Amino acid sequence: MSTDKNEVFNDRFLKACRRERTDCTPIWFMRQAGRYQPEYRRLREKYSLMDLATNPELCAEVTLLPVRQLGVDAAILFSDIMLPLGPMGVRFQIQEGVGPVIDRPLRDLKAIERLRPLVPQEDLPFVLEAICILRKELSVPLIGFAGAPFTLASYLIEGGPSRTFHRTKALMFSRPDVWRALLEKLVEAVAAFLQAQVRAGAQALQIFDSWVGCLSPRDYEQFVLPFMQKLFSQLKGLDVPLIHFGVGTGHLLKLMKRAGGDVIGLDWRVPLGGAWAELGFDVAVQGNLDPAALLGPWDLVEQGASEILRQAGGRPGHIFNLGHGVLPDTSPDRLKRLVDFVHEITRGA
Amino acid sequence: MSTDKNEVFNDRFLKACRRERTDCTPIWFMRQAGRYQPEYRRLREKYSLMDLATNPELCAEVTLLPVRQLGVDAAILFSDIMLPLGPMGVRFQIQEGVGPVIDRPLRDLKAIERLRPLVPQEDLPFVLEAICILRKELSVPLIGFAGAPFTLASYLIEGGPSRTFHRTKALMFSRPDVWRALLEKLVEAVAAFLQAQVRAGAQALQIFDSWVGCLSPRDYEQFVLPFMQKLFSQLKGLDVPLIHFGVGTGHLLKLMKRAGGDVIGLDWRVPLGGAWAELGFDVAVQGNLDPAALLGPWDLVEQGASEILRQAGGRPGHIFNLGHGVLPDTSPDRLKRLVDFVHEITRGA
Repeated sequence: MSTDKNEVFNDRFLKACRRERTDCTPIWFMRQAGRYQPEYRRLREKYSLMDLATNPELCAEVTLLPVRQLGVDAAILFSDIMLPLGPMGVRFQIQEGVGPVIDRPLRDLKAIERLRPLVPQEDLPFVLEAICILRKELSVPLIGFAGAPFTLASYLIEGGPSRTFHRTKALMFSRPDVWRALLEKLVEAVAAFLQAQVRAGAQALQIFDSWVGCLSPRDYEQFVLPFMQKLFSQLKGLDVPLIHFGVGTGHLLKLMKRAGGDVIGLDWRVPLGGAWAELGFDVAVQGNLDPAALLGPWDLVEQGASEILRQAGGRPGHIFNLGHGVLPDTSPDRLKRLVDFVHEITRGA
Repeated sequence: MSTDKNEVFNDRFLKACRRERTDCTPIWFMRQAGRYQPEYRRLREKYSLMDLATNPELCAEVTLLPVRQLGVDAAILFSDIMLPLGPMGVRFQIQEGVGPVIDRPLRDLKAIERLRPLVPQEDLPFVLEAICILRKELSVPLIGFAGAPFTLASYLIEGGPSRTFHRTKALMFSRPDVWRALLEKLVEAVAAFLQAQVRAGAQALQIFDSWVGCLSPRDYEQFVLPFMQKLFSQLKGLDVPLIHFGVGTGHLLKLMKRAGGDVIGLDWRVPLGGAWAELGFDVAVQGNLDPAALLGPWDLVEQGASEILRQAGGRPGHIFNLGHGVLPDTSPDRLKRLVDFVHEITRGA
């Protein structure tokens, strides 16, 4: 690996998280390390996703690849939101084309009481090592991350991906005591994991509450908000920007801001301008091009990106991203072109 | 089958669609005929879903069952949105727990040009017969329905259910000519099918654009709205109420109203009061309890339903429903109790 350390550190992303003015709009992509890259696909012929995420050198290599190829303004640790659940005693597989599948879904208090507390230094040392390696190599900020308690709970209860999340909701509605026990355990584990990532060198954190958009505002407020507030309160002292992201959460944005985060991640469904105005300009926003837009012709990508930048209005505190992860069919060249386009069009704007 | 025809016809649902005052709030459930019913499950041991939908007597029996059991204010024809695609030349299976799976997904102009126009009287006579039988038996209005062109196109292009709809969007973005050809064919077929249902006796129509919520407002406006306007313009003359429904479409509601419909269906994510105010009170609304709420304790169901009714504010033009179809784990007694509760609490309110 060649080192980037001779380069000047690019802090555009961190500045934007703090709503400070930058030379141009920073950009990175969720799942910027992934199947769309030929190099990643080659590695995956030899290694499973978990192999890559648990080997510090491989993890660092996979994390660095898109940073060098695309010229993005941030790196995000290559990992999976399920990773901390293993050492807590949850057995699962990541099935290709499906997602995480849990051996024995958690549906009663007993199963939840059996969950072990996470001790990141002992349970996930390889993650912290990968972060140390990456900090030496990178000249852009490194984002650590974790799944949010609701989203992790949904996998644990459903036993895998779901469309309806009806088992999760049934438990939440019927057994608020069991729900609370589970969410409290997850808050502790997620907080410990994120704290350890920052202590190892992560310079920002993104919390993925990917599936919480299945809840009504009323249910979010009652069953999720208190736990998210607790989680964010435990991260406050870390003094790194916190990004709070969900998919299909247009109806929850104000509650998500109340829960916490310096940056609210927006998916492509909500027009960025209206969403930011609704949230208030005392918070930064990240997003929000439809990942599928990159599968169309370049002029539509350019139109879509320009519209997002127009809506951001040159206001400090916008980080360009997709509204969700890069799709496997995406061309790497297309992503590189988008990075250059966003940088050029906003430079000195 | 016992006949209800001695009973006075209950037109509460139709009145609410027209925003006329009613004695109490009408209520029915999407997928009120389905797996949650022991009687339905017994029938499904002998017959496939398509068997039930294509045999007029069985179709009528399945349609009537929940009307009699639950006391709902409308019947909805038992069918599947895929039904009209068969005679158009699309081969597919409905796979248990998966959904429709298309033998050869449509991805080029040639495949689309091969689609045959739908002639409902010849292609789907059993549906029209079922409607005739039902009209003789029912003392509540019968709702006919169809999938909307975008949602049908998504199945045809993806080849089955999808989370990302990226193939659909890729085609839409890259080949607007192919997209237009497909959507125009689907508009014609859906319009013909719905017109035939009304001529046979359907007293209201619901158009399910179940998956259109995956689009941004901008993309909806460009790639879907013109086709939906065309579809609704072809249904205007039928003089029956038109219900326009989607899931996760909180960000598209105003555009969906512009597309057409006397009633806009709301899912549970949007608070009904705010959504109705945003839409304007010159349109009726239907919804919007989370189907998963019915899996929790009764007091939460009652709270949720009361909150929806409070938000509707006794204004004429609210039809109570779930925000999506009844879940298979739902207790029939629970649904019956909800029907009675909504009727009682709104009677003379």
